[in-house]
Amino acid sequence: MSERDFTATGGETMYEGRIVTVRIERFRFADGEEVSREIVRHPGAVGIVAHDEEHVWLVRQPRETVGDPDVLETPAGKLDLPGKTPLQVAQVELAEEIGKAADDWESLGWFWSSVGISDEVVHLFLARGLRDAPAQAQDNERIEVVTWPLARLDELIAEVRDAKTRIGLLELRHRRACGR
Amino acid sequence: MSERDFTATGGETMYEGRIVTVRIERFRFADGEEVSREIVRHPGAVGIVAHDEEHVWLVRQPRETVGDPDVLETPAGKLDLPGKTPLQVAQVELAEEIGKAADDWESLGWFWSSVGISDEVVHLFLARGLRDAPAQAQDNERIEVVTWPLARLDELIAEVRDAKTRIGLLELRHRRACGR
Repeated sequence: MSERDFTATGGETMYEGRIVTVRIERFRFADGEEVSREIVRHPGAVGIVAHDEEHVWLVRQPRETVGDPDVLETPAGKLDLPGKTPLQVAQVELAEEIGKAADDWESLGWFWSSVGISDEVVHLFLARGLRDAPAQAQDNERIEVVTWPLARLDELIAEVRDAKTRIGLLELRHRRACGR
Repeated sequence: MSERDFTATGGETMYEGRIVTVRIERFRFADGEEVSREIVRHPGAVGIVAHDEEHVWLVRQPRETVGDPDVLETPAGKLDLPGKTPLQVAQVELAEEIGKAADDWESLGWFWSSVGISDEVVHLFLARGLRDAPAQAQDNERIEVVTWPLARLDELIAEVRDAKTRIGLLELRHRRACGR
């Protein structure tokens, strides 16, 4: 065992909310040291970088968390559909948020949003071969669909403040700029 | 006003922890609709992409949040030093975690880690012109300093699961791969 190995020894739930649960959990390291950690447990999420030949498809929506009415993001959603894989959730969200289906799905991997405090995992996908989804987008007048020219991807990346969107667009730019 | 504009109308604290505070907050949109949101308030953080001519400097450490003893990350820290700017906190963290100071600091911007649930902002910096810090790194046997060859940056990006580290390294690769 390395000096970094630990085992969980218990804990208690401090807050059980709509989306997150906060726990104080205890761990014991291989050398015997015991620590306790405040942990925000989150169901996880998906984000989708969707583009056609000319545009990347985004949404602009209010985010009360940060006091901003106009946050630009990829289509996304929480992993709160029982029995659905991340890809299936991504397909549902793409249809609901921008009214599109995609013939070509590729994983862009996954990441931890804020590993010091939370267990949230975000799965990223690249969606191409876009066509209108059989079902309409959910009616939500507060979500504006934004089509951003791929030719202006650098400007978009400079504007984006959302982590999943930034990672997804940086991966997209790399594929395009560097010939992948 | 746009249909996305809102104002905060109140709220209550559900949990006040060591690092985060969870609140249920209420908002009113311009059309009169009222909503309530669960919000995890976090003090914010910094991350530092530090590199010399040959290596990027990282840390490997246990992250109990995700049950992983070996999480590879940029040096980083919370914005919990009163009166210090993000850059000053980054300078403290770089010295404490890898024992280095840097002559050349550049902002890589900032992002929201998980804008659907949290107000956490992470400020990213690029640190170059590395030299030994006047003060030693803090003694923590659970933080291993890792020097990763810049020539193998693609492998590193594929391995990294931490959002701030992934964004920082993607930005670094873009500057290098595409001649900035």
